[in-house]
Amino acid sequence: MANKPGLTVVKIGGNVIDDEAALKAFTVDFAAIKGYKILVHGGGKIATKTAEGLGITAVFHEGRRITDKPMLDVAVMTYAGGINKNITAKLQALGNNAMGFTGADGNLILSEKRQNAAVDFGFVGDVVAVADELLKTLLLQNIVPVFCAITHDGNGQLLNTNADTIAAELAVACSAHFDVKLLYCFEKKGVLTDVENEDSVIKNLTFETYRELRAQGTIHSGMLPKLENCFNALNRGVNAIGIGSPDMIQGKSVYTLITP
Amino acid sequence: MANKPGLTVVKIGGNVIDDEAALKAFTVDFAAIKGYKILVHGGGKIATKTAEGLGITAVFHEGRRITDKPMLDVAVMTYAGGINKNITAKLQALGNNAMGFTGADGNLILSEKRQNAAVDFGFVGDVVAVADELLKTLLLQNIVPVFCAITHDGNGQLLNTNADTIAAELAVACSAHFDVKLLYCFEKKGVLTDVENEDSVIKNLTFETYRELRAQGTIHSGMLPKLENCFNALNRGVNAIGIGSPDMIQGKSVYTLITP
Repeated sequence: MANKPGLTVVKIGGNVIDDEAALKAFTVDFAAIKGYKILVHGGGKIATKTAEGLGITAVFHEGRRITDKPMLDVAVMTYAGGINKNITAKLQALGNNAMGFTGADGNLILSEKRQNAAVDFGFVGDVVAVADELLKTLLLQNIVPVFCAITHDGNGQLLNTNADTIAAELAVACSAHFDVKLLYCFEKKGVLTDVENEDSVIKNLTFETYRELRAQGTIHSGMLPKLENCFNALNRGVNAIGIGSPDMIQGKSVYTLITP
Repeated sequence: MANKPGLTVVKIGGNVIDDEAALKAFTVDFAAIKGYKILVHGGGKIATKTAEGLGITAVFHEGRRITDKPMLDVAVMTYAGGINKNITAKLQALGNNAMGFTGADGNLILSEKRQNAAVDFGFVGDVVAVADELLKTLLLQNIVPVFCAITHDGNGQLLNTNADTIAAELAVACSAHFDVKLLYCFEKKGVLTDVENEDSVIKNLTFETYRELRAQGTIHSGMLPKLENCFNALNRGVNAIGIGSPDMIQGKSVYTLITP
């Protein structure tokens, strides 16, 4: 079988989006990635700020946010409108033929409203299917897809969806056609053995070493579900996953490389 | 030369977008259009309402609106986010593989900031180029492009652009590959000989008859620039233009058909 072409899927969160200088530096690094690529971005403070400005109050259930109709409207406006289109325009200026998407566009990401007998989390969707053939066609035309964290249920309803999950599902679906590397950019330099020490980045993590470090208690709390999701994506076809600061994209900082 | 395939470009304005029942009826009619098609939508009251909610005051110069930075941000959020993605999701539910765009997406519509020595109208763009080859590729994959009235300058700046102009420029650019019919939906049934009488629709208008009616004073004021733009689009390759209510799309009402 011939080698598949490479594809880099990059996810950035609010810490990059909310910081104008960081976003500018990121877009320059992202634009310089060679080969096929996809960007997935989370929200940021603009959604909260816009909701506050419009007098919309966030609703919580036992500490978890409920996406009611007014909050969904704000998420769609700010994620799919404000943030997504500004990033798209910036990447165009840097020579990338970026195209901004929600899951509704081209039915690229179909989701279903999360069901929970006890709590209605509102307009939150879990990914059901990715239109990988259309995505492949777009990528092969050198389109650079830029996804925000909004999907749809196929019945006309937009749904708020976790950006980390979207990045993982896109990476998995595209692994049918590409050798996929998934990069999660976050506020730390990588998976740390000591959360107080940014220099304690674990540079290479396989499922073997992960199991050992977990058993030793070196990796714990918040990183566990993140890493479980990473190994799940690797099991489903993704080649490698990087976790680190946005500087990892062009190799300007160490990061954690996760392989099967 | 082989016949070109047909393409219908439909433009709707705020009167359809602001009326939930009208928008629903429109999407059903639009979804039922056979063959290749493009939708262009204007704004609507949601932009004004959102701006008011956020305490952003509209700035005017001699009665003309200035698109300053805060107002552009609201336009991008509401047009490219709220309105565009909701219409896209509705069309998906009706079996159309809709994809929502600004001009920045895929560099589909490049514009330049309007220059005026006397007045700075702010972030307003005039169309410079349409990426007709990419648009054709998308259409031939049965994608249904849905455009809002936001474009970009290629240097990272989004710009507010007249939706009627976007529809005309898309129609003209696509006439290189398609037989294009352009439908302008507005609040009247068509071009009227008596503005007080909705039954006075001129069913067929050519440049010949238009010149006569204009000389007689039958067509005047607001319709003149609209019709001049129509004949301009016909001169540049568009096959036919319809002006009327959204009911014209499925032939449920009379309308004005304009031909060269």
